Amino acid sequence: MARVTVIGAGSWGTALAMVLADNEHDVYLWTHRENQAEEINTEHKNEAYLKGVTLPETLNAGTSCQDAMDGAAYVLLAIPTKALRDVLSQLIPFMKQPMYFVHAIKGIEPSTFLRPSEIIKHLVPEALRLDVSVLSGPSHAEEVSLRKPTTVAVASSNANTSNQVQDLFMNTHFRVYTNPDLIGVEMGGALKNIIALGAGISDGLGYGDNAKAALMTRGLAEMTRLGSEMGGNPLTFAGLTGIGDLIATCTSQHSRNWRAGYLLGTGHSQEETLQQMNMVVEGVRTTKAVHQIAKEKKIAMPITEAIFDVWFNGKMAKTAVDELMNRTRTSEMDSMDELFGERPF
Amino acid sequence: MARVTVIGAGSWGTALAMVLADNEHDVYLWTHRENQAEEINTEHKNEAYLKGVTLPETLNAGTSCQDAMDGAAYVLLAIPTKALRDVLSQLIPFMKQPMYFVHAIKGIEPSTFLRPSEIIKHLVPEALRLDVSVLSGPSHAEEVSLRKPTTVAVASSNANTSNQVQDLFMNTHFRVYTNPDLIGVEMGGALKNIIALGAGISDGLGYGDNAKAALMTRGLAEMTRLGSEMGGNPLTFAGLTGIGDLIATCTSQHSRNWRAGYLLGTGHSQEETLQQMNMVVEGVRTTKAVHQIAKEKKIAMPITEAIFDVWFNGKMAKTAVDELMNRTRTSEMDSMDELFGERPF
Repeated sequence: MARVTVIGAGSWGTALAMVLADNEHDVYLWTHRENQAEEINTEHKNEAYLKGVTLPETLNAGTSCQDAMDGAAYVLLAIPTKALRDVLSQLIPFMKQPMYFVHAIKGIEPSTFLRPSEIIKHLVPEALRLDVSVLSGPSHAEEVSLRKPTTVAVASSNANTSNQVQDLFMNTHFRVYTNPDLIGVEMGGALKNIIALGAGISDGLGYGDNAKAALMTRGLAEMTRLGSEMGGNPLTFAGLTGIGDLIATCTSQHSRNWRAGYLLGTGHSQEETLQQMNMVVEGVRTTKAVHQIAKEKKIAMPITEAIFDVWFNGKMAKTAVDELMNRTRTSEMDSMDELFGERPF
Repeated sequence: MARVTVIGAGSWGTALAMVLADNEHDVYLWTHRENQAEEINTEHKNEAYLKGVTLPETLNAGTSCQDAMDGAAYVLLAIPTKALRDVLSQLIPFMKQPMYFVHAIKGIEPSTFLRPSEIIKHLVPEALRLDVSVLSGPSHAEEVSLRKPTTVAVASSNANTSNQVQDLFMNTHFRVYTNPDLIGVEMGGALKNIIALGAGISDGLGYGDNAKAALMTRGLAEMTRLGSEMGGNPLTFAGLTGIGDLIATCTSQHSRNWRAGYLLGTGHSQEETLQQMNMVVEGVRTTKAVHQIAKEKKIAMPITEAIFDVWFNGKMAKTAVDELMNRTRTSEMDSMDELFGERPF
């Protein structure tokens, strides 16, 4: 049994806290909203984020930074990328002992192009952190909270850390695999949200399953291209945190990124789309960051570019997707060779 | 304009014949059912297979082997694997000039383990065939018949052939890419049907999108493992005819293989399932073939093995899927390394 503090009581933080509580760890779920902590502690519910779900009675929530950090062996961060710096700055003064940091965040910081694990390493003094790892994969919070079978990966540059975090979360309905590729796992989680916006637009336009499957296939190639350029292992993108998460995100109505794209595709403006979403749409900020990185590194990312033009330059969604479908390249292997180099087949 | 004969007036043959007619080729759609040919020629409909769709008036159907073969430059075969030998044997006596053979068949012959292109090469004398290619990819016939955007690949061991077939089919809503990997493209199309049966079972059991995404990710690894052992390029499985077709097949209710799995997952017996499907379920026969090949070649194919046990050994669908979810391997890269060998990352 370990003392684990979960930072962020949105749907994903709460669902992961449930897994940890199911595994009989001592879990403290930190939120900045008093009434939410109260609801979790007394009613064992978090209706705004996990409607109809009964939380384990052992799951303890609160707003105190001191209670959150005191004696914690693991800190699990499940907040939007945008909030990461601010929340860490609040918590750091209360950190007394070194801890393991695990994050379940899927984004890249637009201005700095940093991954969440890098932001954590930049902010938390080395003496206070034992290691930083990421938990990612095809995992809608709603299903995890219903204890439906789910499979994720934990990545860290240190195999011992990955194994420890694996033990922490693993149970019969929540399967955890380890992966040494921290960069690839973080990049996969961030990049798939861009493709999900595109898949949502395609669905919103009524283009069908054939078009969406083609878009996702090209999207995976694009993710792999940038992700490996950033130092990730291309094979990671063929695994749970690449294609697996891409599938879960693009083909389920649970996905907020898909839903934002869908609203755009059905003719809503950006403003209307953001108004109708009451949660953070990570993909939009990630698109901005990745568009800039791709430009600097001169990497072809046509889907990201199209989404960028739709969101930030007012391009019609239909025009953007039609152009994607009509790109001139006609040999499939040309783009594959770019990814993996020539191979002896 | 080319003279093209399409063999098989099921949903896929008819939809591809529509694409060819849209491209103003001279198309003869061959069927062995007189009343179906009549319906296509006079009512411009094929209600049993493409409900509500109006066919191009230039699309000409018939049951005559002689009319089908006379002057044909291309023969497109769109029939079940099971029917291929029989139908070719009927047609061969009427072949007078050498032709290009293109097939759009997704299966492997159980007894011989031959791919459709191999069966064609075995049966059609060399003097009568210019080349054999395959057309495959994420392409539900229903959507193609509605002219929704669709992307496929054409593969042949000869680049000239692929380019010619690409030109034949290509238009603004039907995009065709070429791929030199005939074996990989054929294997992808056949193998994804096995995974689709598994995805259907998982959905039938109510396991959710997380479980299905994990199953599909593992399924792709399994497809790539066998496909490359059979001589395909592993990268082909990351393209339209691998992951693309897998996505389209596993996430759409159009798919008959998914649907057969779904019926099993909701507790129907094999017999009830086959009764409720009025079309051929290629995946079942492919499972039988692939199970045998994997055994002989000693290749780990846990999903195929599970589907085999459910279909042919009476194993409970729930038991099979639960066992798949609880396999002991816990490092993601172990299975990736098996596929691609160790890599310098």
